Amino acid sequence: MADHRDTTFGYLSAEDVGLFTDRYELTMLRAYRESGHTPDGTFSLFFRSLPTDRGYVIAAGLEQAVAYLQDLSFGDRQLAHLRDEGFPEPFLEYLAAFEFTGDVRAVPEGTAVFPNEPLLEVTAPLDQAQLFETLLLNQVGFQSLIATKAARMRDVVRQHGDDQTLVDFGSRRAHGTDAGLKAARAAYVGGVDGTSNEAAGEQFGIPVFGTMAHSWVQSFPSERAAFEAFVDVYGEDSVLLVDTYDTVAGAKTALEVARETGVDVRGVRLDSGDLAALSTEVREILPEDMAVFVSSGVDEFFLQEFFADGGVADGFGPGTALTTSKDAPTLNPVYKLVAVQRDGEMQPSMKLSEGKVTYPGAKSVRRFRDDDSFRRDVLARADEDVGGEAVLVDVIRDGDVVYEFPALDEIRERTFDTLEKLPADVRAIERPAEYPVDVSDGLAATAERVQSELRREMGL
Amino acid sequence: MADHRDTTFGYLSAEDVGLFTDRYELTMLRAYRESGHTPDGTFSLFFRSLPTDRGYVIAAGLEQAVAYLQDLSFGDRQLAHLRDEGFPEPFLEYLAAFEFTGDVRAVPEGTAVFPNEPLLEVTAPLDQAQLFETLLLNQVGFQSLIATKAARMRDVVRQHGDDQTLVDFGSRRAHGTDAGLKAARAAYVGGVDGTSNEAAGEQFGIPVFGTMAHSWVQSFPSERAAFEAFVDVYGEDSVLLVDTYDTVAGAKTALEVARETGVDVRGVRLDSGDLAALSTEVREILPEDMAVFVSSGVDEFFLQEFFADGGVADGFGPGTALTTSKDAPTLNPVYKLVAVQRDGEMQPSMKLSEGKVTYPGAKSVRRFRDDDSFRRDVLARADEDVGGEAVLVDVIRDGDVVYEFPALDEIRERTFDTLEKLPADVRAIERPAEYPVDVSDGLAATAERVQSELRREMGL
Repeated sequence: MADHRDTTFGYLSAEDVGLFTDRYELTMLRAYRESGHTPDGTFSLFFRSLPTDRGYVIAAGLEQAVAYLQDLSFGDRQLAHLRDEGFPEPFLEYLAAFEFTGDVRAVPEGTAVFPNEPLLEVTAPLDQAQLFETLLLNQVGFQSLIATKAARMRDVVRQHGDDQTLVDFGSRRAHGTDAGLKAARAAYVGGVDGTSNEAAGEQFGIPVFGTMAHSWVQSFPSERAAFEAFVDVYGEDSVLLVDTYDTVAGAKTALEVARETGVDVRGVRLDSGDLAALSTEVREILPEDMAVFVSSGVDEFFLQEFFADGGVADGFGPGTALTTSKDAPTLNPVYKLVAVQRDGEMQPSMKLSEGKVTYPGAKSVRRFRDDDSFRRDVLARADEDVGGEAVLVDVIRDGDVVYEFPALDEIRERTFDTLEKLPADVRAIERPAEYPVDVSDGLAATAERVQSELRREMGL
Repeated sequence: MADHRDTTFGYLSAEDVGLFTDRYELTMLRAYRESGHTPDGTFSLFFRSLPTDRGYVIAAGLEQAVAYLQDLSFGDRQLAHLRDEGFPEPFLEYLAAFEFTGDVRAVPEGTAVFPNEPLLEVTAPLDQAQLFETLLLNQVGFQSLIATKAARMRDVVRQHGDDQTLVDFGSRRAHGTDAGLKAARAAYVGGVDGTSNEAAGEQFGIPVFGTMAHSWVQSFPSERAAFEAFVDVYGEDSVLLVDTYDTVAGAKTALEVARETGVDVRGVRLDSGDLAALSTEVREILPEDMAVFVSSGVDEFFLQEFFADGGVADGFGPGTALTTSKDAPTLNPVYKLVAVQRDGEMQPSMKLSEGKVTYPGAKSVRRFRDDDSFRRDVLARADEDVGGEAVLVDVIRDGDVVYEFPALDEIRERTFDTLEKLPADVRAIERPAEYPVDVSDGLAATAERVQSELRREMGL
């Protein structure tokens, strides 16, 4: 982690990142302090329901979330801004010395999570834990969204294809630079093989792929001249884009250039038209050792149809649909107070807002399996023993990291392992079955009790 | 611009930003140089069709795009990475000394643009202009997407409401940190009044808004105690969140706390339930000088329905739908070579890829108006005189900025002016009418000629 620590936040420095928060977090932080009301609280980061067509979510972004909790600070420029905005000196002094001293439990990256299951729980004095809401949601929510999208594509390619190469081509359509970088990371976690983004390659050690654009071809007097010039520089590494004028004619020209130059050109890329039909036509023209890569509009639905239509390819470059999770561009994660210290003890807490009720208290998620397949989860109180395997692990204790972050490739393997163990109908890319998440008797009783107490107190 | 130059790229430093590009841009750059094939070229950044339900797009992101072109460089760490990836020394030396020496024409921010109209045109040697594709699309595409989404909400609030306050609450659901920051900026360009994001306030001088979360309320033994403690710190600035347990009861408690403390509490916020119905109920309970703010699920469609249902509010906090442009999360912009220097002269260029044909040559967009309303645009060759007002302006000439960037508030005024001049049916938020963009005779003839020549050369 240390080697890219300085730019972990999409190039947000530790000082800058302190201000990446909603004003109300700071407003509350100040008020918690000025009221002398700084009990410990537990916040739970989760989503209430799955995005459309999703049967599961793959957790991602924990490494960045933890680096943020560890490193965030407020520099002189940031404090001067807050001073200008009217925050008083004692509060600014508090921020200048800000340090996270609490605990974090979380789901390891590459693990499947379901509605109401915490991806992360933060326990700390409220005047710390509150501050993190905005950035934790922003980072963990986005990376989990993209890891999930990538996992769906990888799954389709494993089920219906030949486990072809998938490369993230989406930086140009990602929502800003951080999205480009984090989408590349999360997509790799989710199961793609690399990215086109050079900075993501440098930051995260992800393999980087790239060939040529139509502009290369257009800039020469002829397509043939363009291919010859490229092969002259890149030799066997050349992948020639053949659809600038006519895909089939372009593929023939690519083959002729390969034969005339005597270079074993690596392959061609198709980027427009009826890609399933064109890929089979091009496949017949080219010798076996010339690969066919397909881009343009690639997502899990495209891939399923491509294979169903008999398309043939060695690799795909999903772009916009991957990095924006286009059909479902948000996970709608929330960060909710579920317990607060009262009279020296942590008490479960919940809100009753219509359609937004939350289960109270710190939680555990226990996963049960039969024959190596996941069968169901139980959402329980953190202090309950309900059997099964624990999904959340300790990550930070008293402000110190106690978790060993796996390498990105290990996380990716965990995703593959997760996909294998999930029931096929839960993994379906359309109308997936609901994976069973039961609420433990203990948690149900606690929710019932807290809700009754609240209603009684409120006179409802 | 200078004061936030160091973090213009969502905190991407000038050295980092050089690597935020697709590998193929670098692959081509190297090949352009090694082939000694570095003619001037013109690239046009545009979109082929409007996103769903959009009748127009508001251009945004130019200031960041230009800062990028001016400042990008390759630092030692970045060059070391490229060396490890196999790029040869002469190319690395070229990158180490990289400087943009070309021209840029662009649409000022806050201007309406339509399909096939360039938002930006870059003319420079290909071994410069090619490099920028990824980041220009990423920045201009995203900001234009969000400015458009915000403009639609502002328009609904002007047409159907009372021009209420709109505040971007979406950072937590934005796709990473840069998206949070740039969405705040672009939403302000598009017509919202501020943001909840403290960093965006600091970076761009946008007004920052914020109140309290449910966690504040839950952390106290009672809602009343929570309100009292908050009012004790913030006095008349207090906005109390009233839906933690029961919205109407909460509003009554807020009023009681205001009366008992004798503080003219600013207002309340509603964040769940049937917001139109609850807002009228709460409005009747509260005195006129207590404002009602509404958040949760706010977008242009929500607003239209809210007003149609008789909802009453002083302000709204759009979040996820705004910062992700949820119903249409991409503009699908492209950056295409439209002209290339051959035999010492710029020649129009195009590709013929199925469904992706582009108009050749550098272009001008001319806008015609009647009675102060925009009537139609003409997309023409840059060297043609077809009347109307020029939409693109000179921004960079021979590498030097020749454009004076307006303040953000001026850009915002331009958006308001643009909205007023656009036909009402083009501004409709569902099934908008198509704004007429005619292709000039000159451009049509050029397209015809280039296409025929290409087909002849290709033997098609």
